[in-house]
Amino acid sequence: MENIENIKAFGGWLSRYRHLSSSCNCEMTFSVYLPPQAQSARVPSVYWLSGLTCSDDNFRSKAGAERYAAELGLALIIPDTSPRGDGVADAEDRYDLGQGAGFYVDATAEPWAAHYHMYTYVTRELPALVESSFPLMNGVRAVSGHSMGGHGALICALKNPGMYRSVSAFAPIANPVVCPWGEGCFSAYLGSDRARWEAYDATCLIESGARPGPLLVDQGSADGFLAEQLLPEHLQAACKTHGVDIRLRMQEGYDHSYYFIATFIGEHLAHHAEHLR
Amino acid sequence: MENIENIKAFGGWLSRYRHLSSSCNCEMTFSVYLPPQAQSARVPSVYWLSGLTCSDDNFRSKAGAERYAAELGLALIIPDTSPRGDGVADAEDRYDLGQGAGFYVDATAEPWAAHYHMYTYVTRELPALVESSFPLMNGVRAVSGHSMGGHGALICALKNPGMYRSVSAFAPIANPVVCPWGEGCFSAYLGSDRARWEAYDATCLIESGARPGPLLVDQGSADGFLAEQLLPEHLQAACKTHGVDIRLRMQEGYDHSYYFIATFIGEHLAHHAEHLR
Repeated sequence: MENIENIKAFGGWLSRYRHLSSSCNCEMTFSVYLPPQAQSARVPSVYWLSGLTCSDDNFRSKAGAERYAAELGLALIIPDTSPRGDGVADAEDRYDLGQGAGFYVDATAEPWAAHYHMYTYVTRELPALVESSFPLMNGVRAVSGHSMGGHGALICALKNPGMYRSVSAFAPIANPVVCPWGEGCFSAYLGSDRARWEAYDATCLIESGARPGPLLVDQGSADGFLAEQLLPEHLQAACKTHGVDIRLRMQEGYDHSYYFIATFIGEHLAHHAEHLR
Repeated sequence: MENIENIKAFGGWLSRYRHLSSSCNCEMTFSVYLPPQAQSARVPSVYWLSGLTCSDDNFRSKAGAERYAAELGLALIIPDTSPRGDGVADAEDRYDLGQGAGFYVDATAEPWAAHYHMYTYVTRELPALVESSFPLMNGVRAVSGHSMGGHGALICALKNPGMYRSVSAFAPIANPVVCPWGEGCFSAYLGSDRARWEAYDATCLIESGARPGPLLVDQGSADGFLAEQLLPEHLQAACKTHGVDIRLRMQEGYDHSYYFIATFIGEHLAHHAEHLR
């Protein structure tokens, strides 16, 4: 693992690392923010999963999360959104498939199956790597994310009971098997068998009996992707039918941007801190 | 004036405008953040002047200032760093001259004199425009900035007694007449007469008797530009010699990035809020 950047922020350190990933079969880059508290004790971790087109850089530079992480004593673990590089399959004319659009699944269809194993990467390889490398409390984790990464956060929590103490999402792709972004990526990465898609869909997982743990979701009412791609009402209906407690907040006038995330990330980190204590 | 973007953030609105500037003789773009308090009353303004290579976008997306502005009831006025466009002179192979590097002076030398009047733009044209267009308290202003914009904030305050209630700077170019960035821009924009340069140099202005009002300066000790370009010790020495009160804080381990600004912008806005009340 190669340390490629260290920046002091809010009394802690924001660092970037590059490493050879066994699950993705290529070099992967991630960022870690260690709060000041990590200089003298192990701290809990919040994983942040980013949306389409993002790398690890967007969240760390635009969300303002480091301030709250420093106040609350939380580490932030910020992976990339896909494998990358010359030898990695891509759809160069599309922002919503291939590099930057890993969708947090383990691809089984070609040409994606060689590298696109973001689900295993974020739920297995990365936690093992960071918990053995940094002053983090073993197994004391929460997960959050935005849009494609909100979907990622939800399915990581739903598919791994007990792995995360809490989960939250901003404008998640809540029912990807029936929206264009999800259909495009799932058909490419997983093939035509829709039953395989449902294993990576938050709404379907809840309908199948999976339970997410303490869950907070924020959605902007002025989000241009709300009606076609995000479908939080499907998630909410499944939760209602199956007696799952969901705090879904419609935030009046907010859009899909990082300003929306910046506005509410403090409340999300406080939600996680409450359950990570 | 054309409104080209509106984004809700922290209960207020971040907006971007384009207008034909009479001082720069071209279209200029700026951003304004209006805090929630501006929906029912006029609020004070903090002008933010950005550094080399920046547009109005860097500060608004990376500094996290909107949160504090919303808490404190302050508007943020965020101009671009130079005139821009096809008809505007540029040094295309350089990041530190021409477009993105206006240096907050009124250029008198060719080919820059036709458009590069950022000093008049930020101290005269823009305040008149925004105070007549938005719910701002007339004449109740503070000014801050980073690097080239820290220099800009200092000279705007020093050259206009009473115009700003307070001033602050992050890693300002504190004595541009004797550093490479300043020498490069001043010789191009103002010609070879160094006396003209000194009228835009914070250290020289203090030595000539100008007084800045309540002044806060933060400087990172790990800033790679500190020794060659920024020279805060020159400013500090001039302040000491001339009995000027300066709060210059060396911040251990911080670099020149927006993470440094994000860490301390809350304290700067609190400094301004105290004097704007």
